[in-house]
Amino acid sequence: MSDNKTVLVVSAHAADFVWRAGGAIALHQEKGYDVTIVCLSYGERGESAKLWKQEGATLDQVKAARHAEAEAAAKALGAHDIQFMDAGDYPLELDRDKKNELVDIMRRVRPTFMLSHSLYDPYNTDHMYATKVTMECRMIAQAWGHNPGEQVLGAPQLYLFEPHQTEQMGWKPDVFLDITDVWDKKRAAIECMQGQEHLWQFYTNVAENRGNHFRRNSGGQAGGRNARYAEGFQSIYPRTVDEL
Amino acid sequence: MSDNKTVLVVSAHAADFVWRAGGAIALHQEKGYDVTIVCLSYGERGESAKLWKQEGATLDQVKAARHAEAEAAAKALGAHDIQFMDAGDYPLELDRDKKNELVDIMRRVRPTFMLSHSLYDPYNTDHMYATKVTMECRMIAQAWGHNPGEQVLGAPQLYLFEPHQTEQMGWKPDVFLDITDVWDKKRAAIECMQGQEHLWQFYTNVAENRGNHFRRNSGGQAGGRNARYAEGFQSIYPRTVDEL
Amino acid sequence: MSDNKTVLVVSAHAADFVWRAGGAIALHQEKGYDVTIVCLSYGERGESAKLWKQEGATLDQVKAARHAEAEAAAKALGAHDIQFMDAGDYPLELDRDKKNELVDIMRRVRPTFMLSHSLYDPYNTDHMYATKVTMECRMIAQAWGHNPGEQVLGAPQLYLFEPHQTEQMGWKPDVFLDITDVWDKKRAAIECMQGQEHLWQFYTNVAENRGNHFRRNSGGQAGGRNARYAEGFQSIYPRTVDEL
Amino acid sequence: MSDNKTVLVVSAHAADFVWRAGGAIALHQEKGYDVTIVCLSYGERGESAKLWKQEGATLDQVKAARHAEAEAAAKALGAHDIQFMDAGDYPLELDRDKKNELVDIMRRVRPTFMLSHSLYDPYNTDHMYATKVTMECRMIAQAWGHNPGEQVLGAPQLYLFEPHQTEQMGWKPDVFLDITDVWDKKRAAIECMQGQEHLWQFYTNVAENRGNHFRRNSGGQAGGRNARYAEGFQSIYPRTVDEL
Amino acid sequence: MSDNKTVLVVSAHAADFVWRAGGAIALHQEKGYDVTIVCLSYGERGESAKLWKQEGATLDQVKAARHAEAEAAAKALGAHDIQFMDAGDYPLELDRDKKNELVDIMRRVRPTFMLSHSLYDPYNTDHMYATKVTMECRMIAQAWGHNPGEQVLGAPQLYLFEPHQTEQMGWKPDVFLDITDVWDKKRAAIECMQGQEHLWQFYTNVAENRGNHFRRNSGGQAGGRNARYAEGFQSIYPRTVDEL
Amino acid sequence: MSDNKTVLVVSAHAADFVWRAGGAIALHQEKGYDVTIVCLSYGERGESAKLWKQEGATLDQVKAARHAEAEAAAKALGAHDIQFMDAGDYPLELDRDKKNELVDIMRRVRPTFMLSHSLYDPYNTDHMYATKVTMECRMIAQAWGHNPGEQVLGAPQLYLFEPHQTEQMGWKPDVFLDITDVWDKKRAAIECMQGQEHLWQFYTNVAENRGNHFRRNSGGQAGGRNARYAEGFQSIYPRTVDEL
Repeated sequence: MSDNKTVLVVSAHAADFVWRAGGAIALHQEKGYDVTIVCLSYGERGESAKLWKQEGATLDQVKAARHAEAEAAAKALGAHDIQFMDAGDYPLELDRDKKNELVDIMRRVRPTFMLSHSLYDPYNTDHMYATKVTMECRMIAQAWGHNPGEQVLGAPQLYLFEPHQTEQMGWKPDVFLDITDVWDKKRAAIECMQGQEHLWQFYTNVAENRGNHFRRNSGGQAGGRNARYAEGFQSIYPRTVDEL
Repeated sequence: MSDNKTVLVVSAHAADFVWRAGGAIALHQEKGYDVTIVCLSYGERGESAKLWKQEGATLDQVKAARHAEAEAAAKALGAHDIQFMDAGDYPLELDRDKKNELVDIMRRVRPTFMLSHSLYDPYNTDHMYATKVTMECRMIAQAWGHNPGEQVLGAPQLYLFEPHQTEQMGWKPDVFLDITDVWDKKRAAIECMQGQEHLWQFYTNVAENRGNHFRRNSGGQAGGRNARYAEGFQSIYPRTVDEL
Repeated sequence: MSDNKTVLVVSAHAADFVWRAGGAIALHQEKGYDVTIVCLSYGERGESAKLWKQEGATLDQVKAARHAEAEAAAKALGAHDIQFMDAGDYPLELDRDKKNELVDIMRRVRPTFMLSHSLYDPYNTDHMYATKVTMECRMIAQAWGHNPGEQVLGAPQLYLFEPHQTEQMGWKPDVFLDITDVWDKKRAAIECMQGQEHLWQFYTNVAENRGNHFRRNSGGQAGGRNARYAEGFQSIYPRTVDEL
Repeated sequence: MSDNKTVLVVSAHAADFVWRAGGAIALHQEKGYDVTIVCLSYGERGESAKLWKQEGATLDQVKAARHAEAEAAAKALGAHDIQFMDAGDYPLELDRDKKNELVDIMRRVRPTFMLSHSLYDPYNTDHMYATKVTMECRMIAQAWGHNPGEQVLGAPQLYLFEPHQTEQMGWKPDVFLDITDVWDKKRAAIECMQGQEHLWQFYTNVAENRGNHFRRNSGGQAGGRNARYAEGFQSIYPRTVDEL
Repeated sequence: MSDNKTVLVVSAHAADFVWRAGGAIALHQEKGYDVTIVCLSYGERGESAKLWKQEGATLDQVKAARHAEAEAAAKALGAHDIQFMDAGDYPLELDRDKKNELVDIMRRVRPTFMLSHSLYDPYNTDHMYATKVTMECRMIAQAWGHNPGEQVLGAPQLYLFEPHQTEQMGWKPDVFLDITDVWDKKRAAIECMQGQEHLWQFYTNVAENRGNHFRRNSGGQAGGRNARYAEGFQSIYPRTVDEL
Repeated sequence: MSDNKTVLVVSAHAADFVWRAGGAIALHQEKGYDVTIVCLSYGERGESAKLWKQEGATLDQVKAARHAEAEAAAKALGAHDIQFMDAGDYPLELDRDKKNELVDIMRRVRPTFMLSHSLYDPYNTDHMYATKVTMECRMIAQAWGHNPGEQVLGAPQLYLFEPHQTEQMGWKPDVFLDITDVWDKKRAAIECMQGQEHLWQFYTNVAENRGNHFRRNSGGQAGGRNARYAEGFQSIYPRTVDEL
């Protein structure tokens, strides 16, 4: 394993990481982090309507198409690694073995921080389930008695990335990340999602408007940074700093 | 005005800044920031029981004693400047002129960040009033039409420092600051508060326990920083960053 | 299936739908909706104290009695259909097959809106579980890849009906329904619940007082509607309208 | 006064009603409502940076420019009436006479519903103040003993329109309004705001994305309405209905 | 002043204490407490619709009628004392002198606990204002420097009594008081409120249903106390006890 | 079974009851209650880092060491009984049989009140799981149809004891218990936890500072009780009382 700092993205379905954290992935990869993406499922049943409308579609075909799209998107973002757990979706459910697999990944990656979904989502219970599992597995990965002898996980921050209807999910961003420099990569990754073209413009709008929020919060017309695109995140744990 | 980065602390009463932000003040001053403390009142009526128990105490005497204590504490912390608005306490009320005075200070100091009280305090309505006024004055200081021609304020973060009963005030820290290196200064400042000796041990315990929280959140037994003393703060506005 | 608009009521135990949504059921049925009630359990273990106090009571007898009461109540309300899943209570737990059964019902009924319990209930974890399952099944019923070829569910509103101690459950009604015209039916359904006579007056009081709330919120003494009985509901999803 | 149904919009500053409720204004006016807009201030000090950057700008000039822009926008929306209270901004403060003036308007207009700002806004305390005053005046307008003999106000809903950073203000929309048919009018009104051109694209993005939320919540790919532009609102009071 | 324990009730309008705390008043008076009621206003403008509907009603007449009703109610409850501040209603506003008057009462009464309104009330801003003032005056009454030499107030609990629409006010009771033994007195006090007869049945229903909540929370069918009438209260401050 | 009043403590891991409720246990035992502690797990994997750092440590050894420590602590506190469910930790999971075992204990102990963890804990999902299970089992223990013929449980209060980072867990104490008289016992129990010596000072600080909170809330400098050590608890259910 290299000495690079690392990031772990836990995505309930194969496309979530693109819309919600594509900028953070591309940016940290450019900054020398190794970013690992774990797709718990392909979103094969619930987020592939366009594919299912094709005559004779089968589950395996849909999964394969989603796999290909997600890999292409990860490549467009320059992500270090992408893994697929294929745990099934709508509903997503990880048994103990799958959870242990995620614990293993956490210990192997040893992320500086992790990214996952909002705590609440009345539209999509898979999303909140993914975060619940991430919290549980973070705790297990920190346990000295889980696979004794392995190096235990530290205390990586868990950032919740932006859900589709922020206010309905009770999601409140406490940090905005300037992704202007990697916007082209994020847009390219977005365009890999052939099955969800109706979302391309939506998430471009989101990125532009978060850019406005970044400008305002960094000083506005009195010295704010001219970010054109940004992403927002909500932190679960307090930060520890040397300087405010 | 120097080119140093700056901090503005808005303290409802003369001693609040010591218990709640003494470490942050001393630390940032050491790091080259210029820290300005504004005491909106002396806490002369409501937080000076020991002085009032002295035979024949008068309001002016109590204010003078509190003024002296606060100046000594600011000096112990190495603070760049301390100012007293003498707006009265229990209740604290700023008229428009006093508010404009605070706006002027904000524009003059141009703080990188500000520090004040929790949003809610059912024990001490002065505390929440101070934060309410700070928010209002921050908004006015940003207005191009307030004293046109003056340089307007940017968008400084507002950190809420730790209240006396955190859970009752609905205060939740999202950042811990390691103040181990300046603990001696904070303790010295605390000991300037002769009238409130019953709080010395209390806030020493707080600093030690926040040190434990710092250690846990920076990695715990798997690489956490060995902070011995810390302070916690709650942010009002989202941060804007280049890296998570 | 007829062209009528439809409603689906998901009731954790056999009697919940009566106290909490009996008026809505009777009213919408009168307006031409077809209302389907699903009782996930009979409440046979936890909500049948009176029956268990009878010498020699058995689980089957209690279930049968509760089945009969609930059917009588549904009939009194004029409900289109009532179904019993018999999933067990205290605790209520649906396995994947039972959940799929509920998904099937959702797809078959295609409700304009659904009704279930509050999100939180520290007295009765079955209640909040029922709502959690309803949300999960709503999501699955919307998935194009679940039983491909079937017509998927749209986006029916989910209304939470009134729990027994509203404030303890964090339940807040955002809509009041005038049930004055069907009050006699609701009262008749209530009186079918022979095992819980101690609740008849309680829920009559609730209906009267919600009538007062209806009057106030529709204009009070300055033009409010003279509703004598009402029911309150909390919406999970935002409404979509042409006119405010 | 005509027999039309009416709407009252309470806007803290002269431009707020455009970005946040322009669609609702134009749409209800088209539907036969008479919409009255009250601008409590011009936003002359705090929301006119571009005007203040002009050499020699005076407060009167800025107010006049803002007045003209707001009137043009109201005309573009087809609003029945627009009134200016000129109560001053940054900070906005209404004395008892000004408040009584607002009470008089409420009684004269007798709105079916009212529109104002979010309950909380740490960036702009004028916004939350406007809503606080609206609530207080609504209460006074309902009092039989305030100007006895006048017709008292009923119980109009108070909708909170969308603030600039929804999550920071704790604003959660519970209703989406399809404004596709009047989008051209709203865009025209937006373009009247010459001093804030940097917000045109932002609020166009907002309208498009709220259109997506409308589509999803009205049924999505399974029958959702094809709204292209929408606005969101949060209700303060429960609705009273005959049918869910 | 006697050695009795004491209670202070702060009522925004002349009738509030009857509906919301009449049982607590009568019960504690019977137990040997001296209960003092302070009516900040008569509710003359906003809560006397019936009186204003009488031909030629004047403000003084309405106040006198309300004064008489409130005194009769206090007498029916056996209250030790009732005082009227006549500070005006809709809106209620206390200047510094009026607030000091309330501070004086607090110091004179030295209550074991106090009773006032909910923290939030979007229907009636007078209600939340009364609680805000009560909190501020409690703080001032505790200040050694306010009228030095007087005995300062301890730390009496502040209980919020039940508002008219509990869920809309975010009010959550954490204690239920059995008022069965004094119900007749409360009902008699209620019937003193000739101007608001439409509320008699409403608050009788409330008392009965809170009786049910009392029974449930004291043990239900497994040993619960057979309370027939109860009142609920929300505590602002934590209790201090010797035994849980 | 004796006629003593009883308490049931549900501790996720073997040491939790010591830090968080040791004072309450010792105090109520002294007052004549019989206190039963149930440790759902030993905390063998996740809270025994020091033991795992020993060469060749095995799971059984760690469990045995934790068992011994917990028994010694229970003895130091004078607890009536301590039981170990050995359900495993990190993650803690109780199957139906284990849950029924806990139901049986509840029915056998018939506690006046119960103690368990906070509702939310993003650091330690075992903690919130323990409380969730306690709520579910309390409900089952109240069901007349669960093991018909057995005496059902009443409605014991559930107090949540203090978590390690109160604000992050959203835990708010509403009652403080004076544990000054039993502090020596609690400290002795704390010192039984040889594996977690780094927490001894932390929880001594907590007890001292909660003592300050007790003093303040019981009257402060105007008659407050001179508690030197205290514990705080959050109640889930409302209390039922005869006197406020």
